[in-house]
Amino acid sequence: MHFTSESSSGGVTQRRFTLDGVPGVLWQPEGLPLGGRPLVLLGHGGGGHKLGPGVVERAGRCVRGHGFAAVALDAPGHGERPRSAQDERFATEIGELIAAGRPVSAWLARHTAALAERAVPEWTAVLDALGEEAVGEEAVGEEASTGAGEGLGPVGYWGLSLGSAIGIPLAAAEPRIAAAVFGLTGHGSQTEAAERVGVPVEFLVQWDDRLVPREGALALFGALGSRQKTLHANPGGHLEVPDAELDSSERFLTRYLSAG
Amino acid sequence: MHFTSESSSGGVTQRRFTLDGVPGVLWQPEGLPLGGRPLVLLGHGGGGHKLGPGVVERAGRCVRGHGFAAVALDAPGHGERPRSAQDERFATEIGELIAAGRPVSAWLARHTAALAERAVPEWTAVLDALGEEAVGEEAVGEEASTGAGEGLGPVGYWGLSLGSAIGIPLAAAEPRIAAAVFGLTGHGSQTEAAERVGVPVEFLVQWDDRLVPREGALALFGALGSRQKTLHANPGGHLEVPDAELDSSERFLTRYLSAG
Repeated sequence: MHFTSESSSGGVTQRRFTLDGVPGVLWQPEGLPLGGRPLVLLGHGGGGHKLGPGVVERAGRCVRGHGFAAVALDAPGHGERPRSAQDERFATEIGELIAAGRPVSAWLARHTAALAERAVPEWTAVLDALGEEAVGEEAVGEEASTGAGEGLGPVGYWGLSLGSAIGIPLAAAEPRIAAAVFGLTGHGSQTEAAERVGVPVEFLVQWDDRLVPREGALALFGALGSRQKTLHANPGGHLEVPDAELDSSERFLTRYLSAG
Repeated sequence: MHFTSESSSGGVTQRRFTLDGVPGVLWQPEGLPLGGRPLVLLGHGGGGHKLGPGVVERAGRCVRGHGFAAVALDAPGHGERPRSAQDERFATEIGELIAAGRPVSAWLARHTAALAERAVPEWTAVLDALGEEAVGEEAVGEEASTGAGEGLGPVGYWGLSLGSAIGIPLAAAEPRIAAAVFGLTGHGSQTEAAERVGVPVEFLVQWDDRLVPREGALALFGALGSRQKTLHANPGGHLEVPDAELDSSERFLTRYLSAG
């Protein structure tokens, strides 16, 4: 993990890094160690990136509101990462399909599954590297010594749409994830991974989502193997999740990560 | 409205009353007027009554936590009210149907619709009477004078299962209701009333409910005419709503009633 820049503002330190060519950002409370602290993985949506406004806002809430750390990566083909010919084709074709009023869900699921296959090991590598980072921290001063050298605290995942297409197989494979917020996704091809998710999940559905058919999203919620899972559905399209749900998902993650 | 008893404990005054033969309970902050204060109508579930433990707990939260008033009635055939031959038949037969593993939803919907037809005008009469009560209050002391003589503040409704079978047609007919928590219900016969509900609704679904088929509950949520509505679904049966949803529904009502 190679840190490339660091800046602090309003009590939040933002550190950009790359790991095996994947660019990411780490946020943590200024002057305090990563060790022992809850960490939230922030997955952006399709077309977004690690420093998109929603991601940065949620990172700020994690750090300022709860003293957590947060980390975001550019998904394959997003942000600063090169786009493959397939990524380019996808970006063009989805616009055409939507404009033509044709169903996009199967095609979206196929493309995001290909991205997830690359992204899951990237997130795992980032967790490994941040774990080493936390263990290697040296105690500086009395307050900073709390948690220094301890390794990571409990880990949560927050990501909708593409962020869930990646997050669901990640949570299925990655025992360090203790709770997750998913949603705006749902295709039969995700069922098997969803069944292997065992941690508490809050799952968001937009009732009038034209990218993700409601039935597919409801079925994916049903398939989640988690004993504790809760579905929140609201009227409106894919991009119209109400602000109250962002508050709710913050409370949800906090409930499970603060107790850890 | 005839008040029959009054007692206070921990800052909450509980006043039992009857109105045209319907027994009810009013809770309000001790020594403070009803006028101008948000009021939550609490509808109990099938087989319950106005002083069931869930109802009393929610009333206490309304009064102690938020300074609201709350009121509950015995539904027709429940609590202190006489049971008709039909009520008796219902209580016996539903047990038999469930024991035999037979579907109960259509039959449940028919019976609860008959109860709702009687209960809706009873709630309307109680709102009228409490409105007169609030207007008639006399200012006593400086603090108590706030709101005295003002009439009712914003009104919310909280009721699941039978409480929703009654609450949905009530909210459709009653313009004084400003926000509602419904759920654990859903049959095609309720669609028309649901379409006429226009206020913000939080709607609870139990994913494995054997009394209310999931598809019916989801369809009823879809039918609600409210622009602001949110569905919360959780694993488990009809009686297994998680505690976190009771907290959430309290926040939901508070958001709409406190602003009024």
